[in-house]
Amino acid sequence: MISNPIPWPNGARCACVISFDMDADSRIHIARPKDSHDRLYPISMGRYGPTVAVPRILETYRRLGIKQSFFVPGWCIETYPDAVEAILRGGHEIGHHGYLHEDPIDGLDQRAWFEKALEAHHKYCGGTPSGCRAPVYNINQEVLDLLVEHGFRYDSSMMADDIPYRLETKKGGLWEMPVHWGTDDWPPFAHYSEIGYMMPVAGPSTGLSGFWDEFDAAYEAVGFFMLIVHPFLTGRLARWKQVDAWLENTLKTKDVWFARLDEIADHLDQVVASGAYVPRREALPYYCLLYTSPSPRDQRGSRMPSCALKKKGGGGGGGGGGGG
Amino acid sequence: MISNPIPWPNGARCACVISFDMDADSRIHIARPKDSHDRLYPISMGRYGPTVAVPRILETYRRLGIKQSFFVPGWCIETYPDAVEAILRGGHEIGHHGYLHEDPIDGLDQRAWFEKALEAHHKYCGGTPSGCRAPVYNINQEVLDLLVEHGFRYDSSMMADDIPYRLETKKGGLWEMPVHWGTDDWPPFAHYSEIGYMMPVAGPSTGLSGFWDEFDAAYEAVGFFMLIVHPFLTGRLARWKQVDAWLENTLKTKDVWFARLDEIADHLDQVVASGAYVPRREALPYYCLLYTSPSPRDQRGSRMPSCALKKKGGGGGGGGGGGG
Amino acid sequence: MISNPIPWPNGARCACVISFDMDADSRIHIARPKDSHDRLYPISMGRYGPTVAVPRILETYRRLGIKQSFFVPGWCIETYPDAVEAILRGGHEIGHHGYLHEDPIDGLDQRAWFEKALEAHHKYCGGTPSGCRAPVYNINQEVLDLLVEHGFRYDSSMMADDIPYRLETKKGGLWEMPVHWGTDDWPPFAHYSEIGYMMPVAGPSTGLSGFWDEFDAAYEAVGFFMLIVHPFLTGRLARWKQVDAWLENTLKTKDVWFARLDEIADHLDQVVASGAYVPRREALPYYCLLYTSPSPRDQRGSRMPSCALKKKGGGGGGGGGGGG
Amino acid sequence: MISNPIPWPNGARCACVISFDMDADSRIHIARPKDSHDRLYPISMGRYGPTVAVPRILETYRRLGIKQSFFVPGWCIETYPDAVEAILRGGHEIGHHGYLHEDPIDGLDQRAWFEKALEAHHKYCGGTPSGCRAPVYNINQEVLDLLVEHGFRYDSSMMADDIPYRLETKKGGLWEMPVHWGTDDWPPFAHYSEIGYMMPVAGPSTGLSGFWDEFDAAYEAVGFFMLIVHPFLTGRLARWKQVDAWLENTLKTKDVWFARLDEIADHLDQVVASGAYVPRREALPYYCLLYTSPSPRDQRGSRMPSCALKKKGGGGGGGGGGGG
Repeated sequence: MISNPIPWPNGARCACVISFDMDADSRIHIARPKDSHDRLYPISMGRYGPTVAVPRILETYRRLGIKQSFFVPGWCIETYPDAVEAILRGGHEIGHHGYLHEDPIDGLDQRAWFEKALEAHHKYCGGTPSGCRAPVYNINQEVLDLLVEHGFRYDSSMMADDIPYRLETKKGGLWEMPVHWGTDDWPPFAHYSEIGYMMPVAGPSTGLSGFWDEFDAAYEAVGFFMLIVHPFLTGRLARWKQVDAWLENTLKTKDVWFARLDEIADHLDQVVASGAYVPRREALPYYCLLYTSPSPRDQRGSRMPSCALKKKGGGGGGGGGGGG
Repeated sequence: MISNPIPWPNGARCACVISFDMDADSRIHIARPKDSHDRLYPISMGRYGPTVAVPRILETYRRLGIKQSFFVPGWCIETYPDAVEAILRGGHEIGHHGYLHEDPIDGLDQRAWFEKALEAHHKYCGGTPSGCRAPVYNINQEVLDLLVEHGFRYDSSMMADDIPYRLETKKGGLWEMPVHWGTDDWPPFAHYSEIGYMMPVAGPSTGLSGFWDEFDAAYEAVGFFMLIVHPFLTGRLARWKQVDAWLENTLKTKDVWFARLDEIADHLDQVVASGAYVPRREALPYYCLLYTSPSPRDQRGSRMPSCALKKKGGGGGGGGGGGG
Repeated sequence: MISNPIPWPNGARCACVISFDMDADSRIHIARPKDSHDRLYPISMGRYGPTVAVPRILETYRRLGIKQSFFVPGWCIETYPDAVEAILRGGHEIGHHGYLHEDPIDGLDQRAWFEKALEAHHKYCGGTPSGCRAPVYNINQEVLDLLVEHGFRYDSSMMADDIPYRLETKKGGLWEMPVHWGTDDWPPFAHYSEIGYMMPVAGPSTGLSGFWDEFDAAYEAVGFFMLIVHPFLTGRLARWKQVDAWLENTLKTKDVWFARLDEIADHLDQVVASGAYVPRREALPYYCLLYTSPSPRDQRGSRMPSCALKKKGGGGGGGGGGGG
Repeated sequence: MISNPIPWPNGARCACVISFDMDADSRIHIARPKDSHDRLYPISMGRYGPTVAVPRILETYRRLGIKQSFFVPGWCIETYPDAVEAILRGGHEIGHHGYLHEDPIDGLDQRAWFEKALEAHHKYCGGTPSGCRAPVYNINQEVLDLLVEHGFRYDSSMMADDIPYRLETKKGGLWEMPVHWGTDDWPPFAHYSEIGYMMPVAGPSTGLSGFWDEFDAAYEAVGFFMLIVHPFLTGRLARWKQVDAWLENTLKTKDVWFARLDEIADHLDQVVASGAYVPRREALPYYCLLYTSPSPRDQRGSRMPSCALKKKGGGGGGGGGGGG
């Protein structure tokens, strides 16, 4: 069901990444800056991530011998250096995830926030990360340009395919490691009225069962399975117990490649360079706004959209395109 | 449990339509016109539809030898011509679905938007479509009149019955191919806070199981089973894998008629013409507002509704009525 | 688990009522009075109730030989007289449910709306109903007084117990046939953004399974099992098919008493009169507002609540109390 | 999976607490003070707690011989003295839960409300409680200081760990008995649009199954299992029937310690004093706001957060720390 499956190393049927966004308590501070320092329950809910869940997760990875990817906002890197150090010591990757989980669409000075986060990576993680996941997935063209400018090799915030694909912008290209709401743990497990996320909480088995359905489909189709999960949600005891058991069983019984996203980017570069694989390419920006001529308005005053929104770039087709 | 079952071709127990609304990224543009061009994550989520899901869906239909119905906003037809061409090449039908998924109730100039969409159909799809599904189901009397005026043969936006029925307006009649929230994939699978749709995401098995319950009931009752689904939701890998398996199994083990909605309209016209079937009729408009005399107000100032809302047309009974 | 179980007729273990609120399209008219007449999809969704679901439900009841209770807003009685006549012809009961499903808490002139609905009952149903269910359960003291004044024998809008209990007001008493969100079909099945009810839609089996859990518990405890459901939701084909099967099976295998709520009120009056049963009593109004002395305010300006809200009546204990 | 498991009495594998917040109808009064006295349905929904559910719950506890913890707002203590007396007579504990379930973050005079609630405890429950659960978990530094000042031994409003841990403030320390949304019954069972909590209602089996998953994980990890439930939700007949059966079965088949939270605090003090256990410590306040120098602003005017929010105290690590 995947039109151009990627040849994974050693003929593995599926690449697997449990990617953790270690947001800790950043979200309450960006959402409620006036009094967040005194909102002890959401702070404590977030702190569970770096202090209780991350050591537990790292212990599982150590025992099973796998390396995975974490995305951590700059402020969380500065505030929870022990967790960061433990992640790096375990051989895992830490990607860019904004400074305080700020939404890039909110009209902030992206360069200032982006580079402030980058400083934290340089100071605590030893350099510029390979990849970035925009907070709340809200990547925009400006952030994309910053990624290219700073030599990032991949983004992981978009949903245009099941498997990694190339983003080609006017300034350069990078890999997209695509996300999806069906493999994100906010819908099943987050309950956070303070930030406007009032949702039911699935039981551990029920909430995780959708993820395993997704894996089964990716495995059968020789695809890419990535969870986008959070230490303070999926790292909770009862949920992680089930993920741990699933990991152990999957490693034992399936032919999968658990890897960090930067390792996957390495592999993709390789198979593209060798000509073994031609990835799909999406050319960006998708659209530009053209207001050179007054846009026609309908009789009741609402502007007709087609003139304002002009298609840019290509990407219409389903597969193919040139190499990376 | 259906009081006036339709005699399906060759005595099939159930007519089945997997109807896809290929909205692509139209919804983000209509909801957030100021900056939607820079909202790359919702754009990418929508683009998955025409570029990844539609080829996958068409491949299933080709393999199983079935033709189905797609509804595509005019702007999506213009923006994703490859997907449109592939759909038509597969022998499927493309119906009207607004221009940019604009809500007809929003007080826009319906004629302008409706006919702008129609132009796209003429240019890319070879003529006026047979059917229409109003965006967000929000059909109103003005759109209904436009359908009659332009010779549409069916609408598919209303819920007054389990099986197709006749809409009779002052200007003419057409078939209603009824929809229902229980067979729509937005409730189980959409998660789209940007357009105010903050909902849990069901796992593939859980989310689809409700649809199969609906089929079982329709099949037992000699009815009509229609899914109202979206390439960027139900066309995702893990979900479509299950739909594909269900289709294959159903075609093998049940006596069903998978058809396009225009073929179903053909069949209905035939059985009505031959006298083999008398469909239920709903006369519209249902109500008209009469303000000829000042409406009485209650003591605290709220107007009593019964004088303002005057019943029009008939449709009180449960079954019967004259032929189409 | 029920401290004072009711002795049901012939030693039945449980009284059962499938109570239907036939709201039809009233809710869209009260919620969106300006343009509801042109909102054809919600109108059609509501019309399904009186025109398709009610005949189906009545056929099940006829076949199984049971009589049940329907609550119908006055405007729906006037608008759907055929459905009303069919309900009455089947031997079922029609209770008061407001005029246009107006929320009694909204500051309307309750007497005018209440009595306007009553006129419809007199004209179409042959007299004053025995019972009332306040729209959206929002009964208040004024409506309660109107019920007593007009000789109603029961209300069915409150949740203070698992089994019927007495409401005692200063003007008189009546039975409360208690409702509960766990046996109401809005949470599992309604999806109605136009009236601010944006909820997931459970599959038929999943959504109904909670109801059957509730029955099992009521049956074991010698209790009272009442569904509060709607023709346009639970009367849909796939859901009703399952309810029909459950009814048939339950009637065959369990010792239950399916009855109308007015019949249950008759029985309760009887067992109370004979001394066989002493019901729980709730004295109303629960509270009154007293502003005789200025209420103390805390240092930051928020009024302390305890002086404003004065407890009235009794009802502290768990069981007992005098007869009806 | 728990890095520093607590040695429970007699080698029990898990400490278990079914903690009930008996809010009764307090929430509607704090949310809708203008007309809550006339909102009979939410009042009745809340009254079910002290009048029907609490006797049922106490009967289960009596039969099974366990003592548990209840948290009751001061106003509820005054309004439902019979329920309070029955709870105390059963040997259970009653903790502080605000006066009218007021949200401590709402800028109220915390001391006035806190001490008004305390008066109710002194008058009806015989003294200052051992523990406190902040309404809606919204503990803040001011409430924490009040707890220390009044000699409370534990709080139960935060989520920073799976097992009890120490809170160390400048004024003194106390135990935190951590809560979690996965063991709270509001997400599965509450449906309360009047207070902005519009959520689906899980069936009894489905809604409770998540709790039992949580227990299984805690039991396996030698942990701490606490439900945070409400008489008017989990004390409803069909749900409590299942909890009762689970309790009976668990007591029979597992090696668990059901205890009151104050007994757990006793035990923790003991094992810490004896040196058998070193708990994790969280130093509070977590942050303080420093505005001594003007904080830098980004080019578009949004203040950079890192200077305003200064980390205070420690707590970065995953385990360890000094004794209580």
